[in-house]
Amino acid sequence: MVIEIDFNSDVAIYMQLRNQIVIGIATAEIREGETLPSVRQMAEKIGINMHTVNKAYSVLRQEGLVTIDRRRGAVVTIDVDKIQALEELKGQMLILLAKSSCKGITRKEVHQLIDEIYRERQL
Amino acid sequence: MVIEIDFNSDVAIYMQLRNQIVIGIATAEIREGETLPSVRQMAEKIGINMHTVNKAYSVLRQEGLVTIDRRRGAVVTIDVDKIQALEELKGQMLILLAKSSCKGITRKEVHQLIDEIYRERQL
Repeated sequence: MVIEIDFNSDVAIYMQLRNQIVIGIATAEIREGETLPSVRQMAEKIGINMHTVNKAYSVLRQEGLVTIDRRRGAVVTIDVDKIQALEELKGQMLILLAKSSCKGITRKEVHQLIDEIYRERQL
Repeated sequence: MVIEIDFNSDVAIYMQLRNQIVIGIATAEIREGETLPSVRQMAEKIGINMHTVNKAYSVLRQEGLVTIDRRRGAVVTIDVDKIQALEELKGQMLILLAKSSCKGITRKEVHQLIDEIYRERQL
């Protein structure tokens, strides 16, 4: 998959990398059981520090999306604890909705936006 | 409003403070035009560093939710650029939905969760 980093973004580089891998998994561009490029390869490919790649992989591991195998490296392995995932989603979604609400975005607009994202990104 | 910080959380303290103020504004516990406690007061009240409070207020300023007035301090002032707010929401929502999708959460469950949050929190 193509990873694109925006060096002018407010979002930290390791989070951009993590986000793009998450989207890659969600859209089946990266499949369960696949090995991500090694830390060195990924760092060279996108022109960032190895430490930054490590940090992204480590977040993905904590989130239960990859396991780190000493020989194979970072392997996409999804830990489907749906109850925990729903709880986490609820906490994060609350913050997003609260901010949207401050900005005058309605509940209806949120629902529409979600349908738009599912349609456009084929999640 | 009561601010509760979880010192064992993975979420940085300044983000916890920012999140709670955002929720406070969304639920009209804090109203537009109100002044937030001074950095010193807030730091003492919740037992955190003044620098951390400053960081939270500065994020809120960047997000267009408060202005910093030299005399009055941090005043809740909502910059309602709805088009920009919707764009930002879309970017952040995509990441949340992608992660949820990896974890097997369906579109229908997302819509239900959103209604649940609006109902429970009266946003």
